[in-house]
Amino acid sequence: MKNGSPFKTVALIGKYNADNIAGPLLALASCISQRGFRVVFEQDTARTLGADAAPYAALAPEQIGQQADVAVVLGGDGTMLGIGRQLAAFDIPLIGVNHGRVGFMTDIPLGDMLQVVPAILEGAFERERRTLLDARIERAGATIYRALAFNDVVVNRSGFSGMVELRVDVDGRLMYKQRSDGLIVATPTGSTAYALSASGPILHPALAGIVLVPIAPHALSNRPIVLPDQCEIVISIVAGHEVSANFDMQSFNALHLQDRIAVKRSEHSVTFLHPAGYNYYATLRRKLHWNEHISEDDTA
Amino acid sequence: MKNGSPFKTVALIGKYNADNIAGPLLALASCISQRGFRVVFEQDTARTLGADAAPYAALAPEQIGQQADVAVVLGGDGTMLGIGRQLAAFDIPLIGVNHGRVGFMTDIPLGDMLQVVPAILEGAFERERRTLLDARIERAGATIYRALAFNDVVVNRSGFSGMVELRVDVDGRLMYKQRSDGLIVATPTGSTAYALSASGPILHPALAGIVLVPIAPHALSNRPIVLPDQCEIVISIVAGHEVSANFDMQSFNALHLQDRIAVKRSEHSVTFLHPAGYNYYATLRRKLHWNEHISEDDTA
Amino acid sequence: MKNGSPFKTVALIGKYNADNIAGPLLALASCISQRGFRVVFEQDTARTLGADAAPYAALAPEQIGQQADVAVVLGGDGTMLGIGRQLAAFDIPLIGVNHGRVGFMTDIPLGDMLQVVPAILEGAFERERRTLLDARIERAGATIYRALAFNDVVVNRSGFSGMVELRVDVDGRLMYKQRSDGLIVATPTGSTAYALSASGPILHPALAGIVLVPIAPHALSNRPIVLPDQCEIVISIVAGHEVSANFDMQSFNALHLQDRIAVKRSEHSVTFLHPAGYNYYATLRRKLHWNEHISEDDTA
Amino acid sequence: MKNGSPFKTVALIGKYNADNIAGPLLALASCISQRGFRVVFEQDTARTLGADAAPYAALAPEQIGQQADVAVVLGGDGTMLGIGRQLAAFDIPLIGVNHGRVGFMTDIPLGDMLQVVPAILEGAFERERRTLLDARIERAGATIYRALAFNDVVVNRSGFSGMVELRVDVDGRLMYKQRSDGLIVATPTGSTAYALSASGPILHPALAGIVLVPIAPHALSNRPIVLPDQCEIVISIVAGHEVSANFDMQSFNALHLQDRIAVKRSEHSVTFLHPAGYNYYATLRRKLHWNEHISEDDTA
Repeated sequence: MKNGSPFKTVALIGKYNADNIAGPLLALASCISQRGFRVVFEQDTARTLGADAAPYAALAPEQIGQQADVAVVLGGDGTMLGIGRQLAAFDIPLIGVNHGRVGFMTDIPLGDMLQVVPAILEGAFERERRTLLDARIERAGATIYRALAFNDVVVNRSGFSGMVELRVDVDGRLMYKQRSDGLIVATPTGSTAYALSASGPILHPALAGIVLVPIAPHALSNRPIVLPDQCEIVISIVAGHEVSANFDMQSFNALHLQDRIAVKRSEHSVTFLHPAGYNYYATLRRKLHWNEHISEDDTA
Repeated sequence: MKNGSPFKTVALIGKYNADNIAGPLLALASCISQRGFRVVFEQDTARTLGADAAPYAALAPEQIGQQADVAVVLGGDGTMLGIGRQLAAFDIPLIGVNHGRVGFMTDIPLGDMLQVVPAILEGAFERERRTLLDARIERAGATIYRALAFNDVVVNRSGFSGMVELRVDVDGRLMYKQRSDGLIVATPTGSTAYALSASGPILHPALAGIVLVPIAPHALSNRPIVLPDQCEIVISIVAGHEVSANFDMQSFNALHLQDRIAVKRSEHSVTFLHPAGYNYYATLRRKLHWNEHISEDDTA
Repeated sequence: MKNGSPFKTVALIGKYNADNIAGPLLALASCISQRGFRVVFEQDTARTLGADAAPYAALAPEQIGQQADVAVVLGGDGTMLGIGRQLAAFDIPLIGVNHGRVGFMTDIPLGDMLQVVPAILEGAFERERRTLLDARIERAGATIYRALAFNDVVVNRSGFSGMVELRVDVDGRLMYKQRSDGLIVATPTGSTAYALSASGPILHPALAGIVLVPIAPHALSNRPIVLPDQCEIVISIVAGHEVSANFDMQSFNALHLQDRIAVKRSEHSVTFLHPAGYNYYATLRRKLHWNEHISEDDTA
Repeated sequence: MKNGSPFKTVALIGKYNADNIAGPLLALASCISQRGFRVVFEQDTARTLGADAAPYAALAPEQIGQQADVAVVLGGDGTMLGIGRQLAAFDIPLIGVNHGRVGFMTDIPLGDMLQVVPAILEGAFERERRTLLDARIERAGATIYRALAFNDVVVNRSGFSGMVELRVDVDGRLMYKQRSDGLIVATPTGSTAYALSASGPILHPALAGIVLVPIAPHALSNRPIVLPDQCEIVISIVAGHEVSANFDMQSFNALHLQDRIAVKRSEHSVTFLHPAGYNYYATLRRKLHWNEHISEDDTA
C-alpha cells in the first residue's frame, strides 16, 4: 500500500455490457495495483473481462461495500446511478470515469484516467456528499414497494391516458392538488437530469433541499418548489389510470387510486471523490453550454 | 321558420351520458321550436331523453351534417371536440353551451341559454372559423391510421419508459431531432389546451399557424415554434418504446420505430357561432385569470 | 400584563401615509391595552393619528427595537419589508395585518384583527424565521454602499440601454458570465415576489437557500440556480451602461464597470408570528390560485 | 453585365466603424465588378475605405435604394437591422455576409463570400420576405414619433423603477392589462432575438404573425400570444415612471402616462437572398445548438 493514502482496496466497476471497456478497465487495474493498492473487480464486470480478470478478486456489490475502501466506476452517469444506489448503505466513496462524453457524476475523461485516478487514490481529491431519496409505495396502509433514488422519484401518467390528478402533502399538511402529466421529486443530483427538462431549477449539491417539479401542469401558476430535505412528501393518486412511479427510471407500473408514494431523504448518502481542483460550476458551464454567447461581435 | 334567419333546422346534441342535461335540452328544444325552427336531436342524445324526445326527429351525426343548418352542443369543450370532428366534413356551424364552467369553445353559460341561443339563431352572432389537423400514421409506406384533430396531435412515450427520440421534418426538410417526453402539434384552438400546460404560446384563432411544443425536451434550447399552417409536418420515431400518438386524446398506442406521423391542416374547418359582441380576449382573460393582480394596493 | 404572555410591550406600526388605517390602528391599540399590554406607536404612525395617539408613547424604529417585545404591522407586504429591515438588528418578532388583499407576510385580514392579534399576543402563534441578505457594493476595493434586503438584490440594466454582461462568482469561484437584462438574488421570502415573475422556483421559508434568477438571459440554458445560504455571491459588472442595483426596490443607480455587488445571508433574521394553525401552503394556494382547475367537469 | 442575372448594380455596405473589413470589402468589390456588375459603396463605408474606394461610386442609402438592384451587407445581424430599416421603402433585396459568427440574417461566412455572393448575383438564390413593424407613439391624439422595426418594439420600465402597468388593445378591443417589466412586440425575425430570451416562441419567417411576449409579468398566466399580422396593437401606459419604448433598440425615453404606442405590420417588407439550398431550420439548429444531445451514450 502506498504510504499516506487513505485507501487500501480499490473496486473497479464497468458499465454493464458496454463495448470497448475491457481494455481501459484492465489498464486501470494494472496501473493501480502497481502503485500498491489491492484491486478487486465487481463480479459482472469480471465475467465480462474473462480470463484477463483472473489475477484480481471478483466480488458482489455487497462484498465490495464491505471490503473495498473506494470504488472506481467506468461508464456514464446512468451506471453511476445504479452503483450508487447499491452501495449507498456502505458509505464507500465513488470515483467516476466516463467512457463517452463527460457527465455530471462521471467527470473524469477516459483519456485522463491513468493520471487522475491514481492521484485521487493518493489523496488529491475533493470530497462531495450527495443525498438520496428513500421512497415507499403504500397501499391500504401497507408498504408494497421501497426503493432508493439518486436522481428522482417521478409519478406520472402513461402516454395512453389523460392527465393524472395528484394530491401532495408535506409533513402531514396539504400542499396542493394538481392535474398534470406527473410530478418529479428530485435531489440536487437529479435537478440537472429530468427535472431540468421539465423546467426545474438547478440545486447546488450542497443545498439541503428537494425540489418538486410538475410536468405539464394544468394550472399555469403551478411552479417548481424547493423544500428543506428534512420534509416528508406524500403523493396520493386522486384520479387517472395507468399511473406509474419511477425511481431513477426503475418503474413500478400498476398504481391504484389512493396509493401513496412517500418520499424522504435517505439516511444514507453517497460520497464522490473528484480530482483536486474540481469545480461544480465548471461542470455546469460545460454541460449547459453557458458562456458561449458572451463574446458575440454584433448584436445591436 | 322565423323570417330573416339564416337557419331552418337546428340539431341539439348533449354531452354523452351526462347527468342533469335532459331538462335543459328539452327546455331548449321547446323554446327553439316555438320560435319556428325545426328541431332534431342527435340519436344518442335522443335515446338518453327517452319518450320526452319523441316529438323530435333523432338523427345520426352524418344525417345531422346533411340535414341541419346549425347544431347546438350542450356539454363542455371535450364534447365539442368530438362533435366538431364528426361534423367537420359538412360545414355546419356549431353553437356551444356549457353545462359547467364556461369553456373556450362552449362559451354560453347554461343560465343564459334560453335568451342567447335564439338570438344567435335569429342572426345576432359572430362567426369564427377554426382549423383542424389531418393526421396520418404511415408504416412502411402505407397509411395505417388517419384521424382529424381539433386541438392537437401528440406523439409521446408512455410513463413506463425512458425518453423518446423523434425526428421532425417540415415540407421535406429536417427541422430537428429531439429527445423528450414527446411533441405536441397544436392548432390555435389546441394552443390553449395541453400545449399551454407544456409552455406553448397562445395562438389567436385567426392566425394561420400551427405550433410545435416539445414536452420536457432534453435540450434546453428546444423551444416552441410556430409554423405557417400550409406546412406538412412529419414526425418519425427514431428511438423509444411504448410510443403512442394521440389525436385530441384518441390514442393509437403501438407505434413502431420508423413509423411516421404526417400532420397537415385539414381541408375542412369548423365554424363556431358566438353571441353578438363575443370577444376572444374576454374569454382568455376569464379562463387565464388575467388582470387579477392589477389593482393590488401594496407592493413596494 | 396578561399572565403567561411572552410579551409586555407591543409596538403598532401603520403603512406610511395610507388612508383609512387610523380607525383600525386605534381600535387595535385600545383592544390590546385593555388586555393589559403596554402599547406604543411608531412615531410617524403616531403623527398621522394626531391627538388620538396621545395616550400612547411614540417611538422611533430604533427605540421600538430596544423597548418593544413584539410589533404589529398594519399595511401590506411592502410595509412589512421596510419595517423588517429597520428592525432586523433587534430580533423583535413581527405580526402582519393586511388592510387590503392578504399578502405573504401580512397574513391576517383586517376584519379578523381584533380576534387574532390578541390571541397571538397571548401565546397562540406559529413562529417562523426568515433570512435577509446583506449586500455591499464595492468599487476599487472600497465598500461604497451597504444595505439589507428581505426579498432580493437585483442588478439590472435600465430600460434605455442594451443588455448587461455580468460575471458571477460564488465563494471565490467563477460560476458564469451572463448577458441578460439582469440578475435577481432572492431569499426564500423573495422567491414569491419578483423572482417568481422571472420564472424562478418557490423556496420554502425554512430552506437554507438563496436563488439566482436571470432576467431574460441571452443563453437559453441559463436557468435559475439555488445555492446554500452560506455562500457568498459576487456579481461584477463586465459590460453595459446605466446599470443599477436594487435592494428590495431601493435603488443604487450609478454602477460602474468592474463594480462588485457582494451578497450573503445577513447575520440578522426576522421572526414572524403567525396565527396558530398557520399553514404556509395554504397561503401559497390562495396567492397563486392553485387547485382551482381541479374540479373541472369536462376536459376530454 | 452577366447574361441572365436579374441584377446590374450591386451596393456594398460594411458595418460602421468595424475593424478589418476594408480588405474583405475591396476584395468583394473587385470580384463582383470583374464579373460584369456595377459596384457602388454606401457613402460611410466608402469614407472608411478611403482612396481604395475611389474606383467605385459612393452613394447615400436613399440613392442606393433608387439606383442599386441588390445590396450586400458585410457585418452582423445588427448591421443588417439598421440597413434593412433604411432601405425598406425601396424593395431592394439584401444579401448578408457575417464577418464574425454567422447570424440569422447574415448567413454567409466571410470565408465563403467570394464563391457564394457571385453565385447568388448570378441567380442561384432562395428569396425570403421578412415583415417589419410600423410603430407610432401617440400623445394626446398626435403622433409624436414614428419608427420602423425589423425585430421588435419593446415598451419597458427603466431599471431604477418598479413595474410598469400596460393596457393592450388589439383592433380596438381590450386584450389585457398587465403589470410587468415590459412587453415585447416582435416580428418572426425578432422572435429569435430578445423575445426568445424572454421565453417567447420561435415564429417561422413565413408565418403571417406577430408575437407579444411579456417580460417578467406579475400574473403567472400571462403568456406569449401570437396574433395575425393584420392586427393593430395599441399599448397604453397606465402606470409606472421612466418608461421607454424601443424600436430595434433605438430608444424613445420620455414616455408619459396615457401615451399610446400603436404597432402594425409595415406596408414595406425586406427581401433577403440566401444561397441556393438555404434552409431556415439548419440556421436554427446551428444557432440554438439543437441536436447536440441526441447521441449521448449513457443516460439511464
